[in-house]
Amino acid sequence: MQYPEPIAKLIESYMKLPGIGMKSATRMAFYTIDMDESDVTSFAKSLISAKRDLHYCSICGNITESDPCIICADKTRDRSKLIVVEQPRDVMSLEKMREYQGLYHVLHGVLSPIEGKGPDDLNITSLVKRLQNDEGIKEIILATNATPEGEATAMYISRLLKPAGIKTTRLAHGLSVGSDIEYADEMTLFKALEGRTEI
Amino acid sequence: MQYPEPIAKLIESYMKLPGIGMKSATRMAFYTIDMDESDVTSFAKSLISAKRDLHYCSICGNITESDPCIICADKTRDRSKLIVVEQPRDVMSLEKMREYQGLYHVLHGVLSPIEGKGPDDLNITSLVKRLQNDEGIKEIILATNATPEGEATAMYISRLLKPAGIKTTRLAHGLSVGSDIEYADEMTLFKALEGRTEI
Repeated sequence: MQYPEPIAKLIESYMKLPGIGMKSATRMAFYTIDMDESDVTSFAKSLISAKRDLHYCSICGNITESDPCIICADKTRDRSKLIVVEQPRDVMSLEKMREYQGLYHVLHGVLSPIEGKGPDDLNITSLVKRLQNDEGIKEIILATNATPEGEATAMYISRLLKPAGIKTTRLAHGLSVGSDIEYADEMTLFKALEGRTEI
Repeated sequence: MQYPEPIAKLIESYMKLPGIGMKSATRMAFYTIDMDESDVTSFAKSLISAKRDLHYCSICGNITESDPCIICADKTRDRSKLIVVEQPRDVMSLEKMREYQGLYHVLHGVLSPIEGKGPDDLNITSLVKRLQNDEGIKEIILATNATPEGEATAMYISRLLKPAGIKTTRLAHGLSVGSDIEYADEMTLFKALEGRTEI
């Protein structure tokens, strides 16, 4: 016996989401049937709306309803600094800090030979063009993840931008705030020691 | 800075699913934006369709497009046996075995004083009525989960049905096929020993 078609299709749809296998998808599908009709309808609408109404900003590549995005369009922001991140959600994390007032550039990925991702697959060309057209940017802060791919991508971009003579920095590596030295891995400890500051 | 509204709403919708927290929901929402438009549309349609086209069978409580469900409507099935399960997905698991040809009854939950679920919240009254109206059922197989709540529910139903004089059985407890004795818990080992069979 097969699942009735409507639920089989829903399971299939849930399985397309990242990290969702057959069992979770089945659980979610059965759960959906027991949800309020209004919740299911608004879920379906939000799916359609997220796909239809959201675009990537033509300047920075961040996710946005309007183009340019509200950060690029905001004249009060500090246009001398630009943070380069991997994903739109990294912009949100940095904005939550409420400390940084500069601009962003979203790469939409990292260099990854294993996945066959080269510089042309990332939003790098537009970054270079942006720097060529905009005289105001004085510092590029590379905020790719602290992973091998993130490091390689940061290194690649810093070398690419060197001839332009713009200051290029990288976020500091070290112990997470609130973490125990006992549980820190060797590489993090090494970076924390290397980057020690006078108090 | 807040997420753009379409994605904030989608994150909220994903968070209503079981086992999905803020981080997974955010990951799924951003993933959705990068999905093919056709996949997102069919996802939204399958949500609506699962909610609109699926109902509970008026006889057994299983999930179905037609009423009665294809199992209740199937005249070739053995109408002398009836398996009682907690959820519609348990019916699917038992059907996958391709061994059982009888009928089902879905309780839609278990007795749980902690969650304030009593006999009236389960599909029990209809089970009793079904047995009163149907003379053919000779055995009730209680296939609630092997959890304290599942056991208590099985016990409750078996006592409830005792006056009717119908044979009531419970699925066997023991070692899972392919499992190691070394890793089995004490209760399972105890049940396996208690229910040992001659070879």
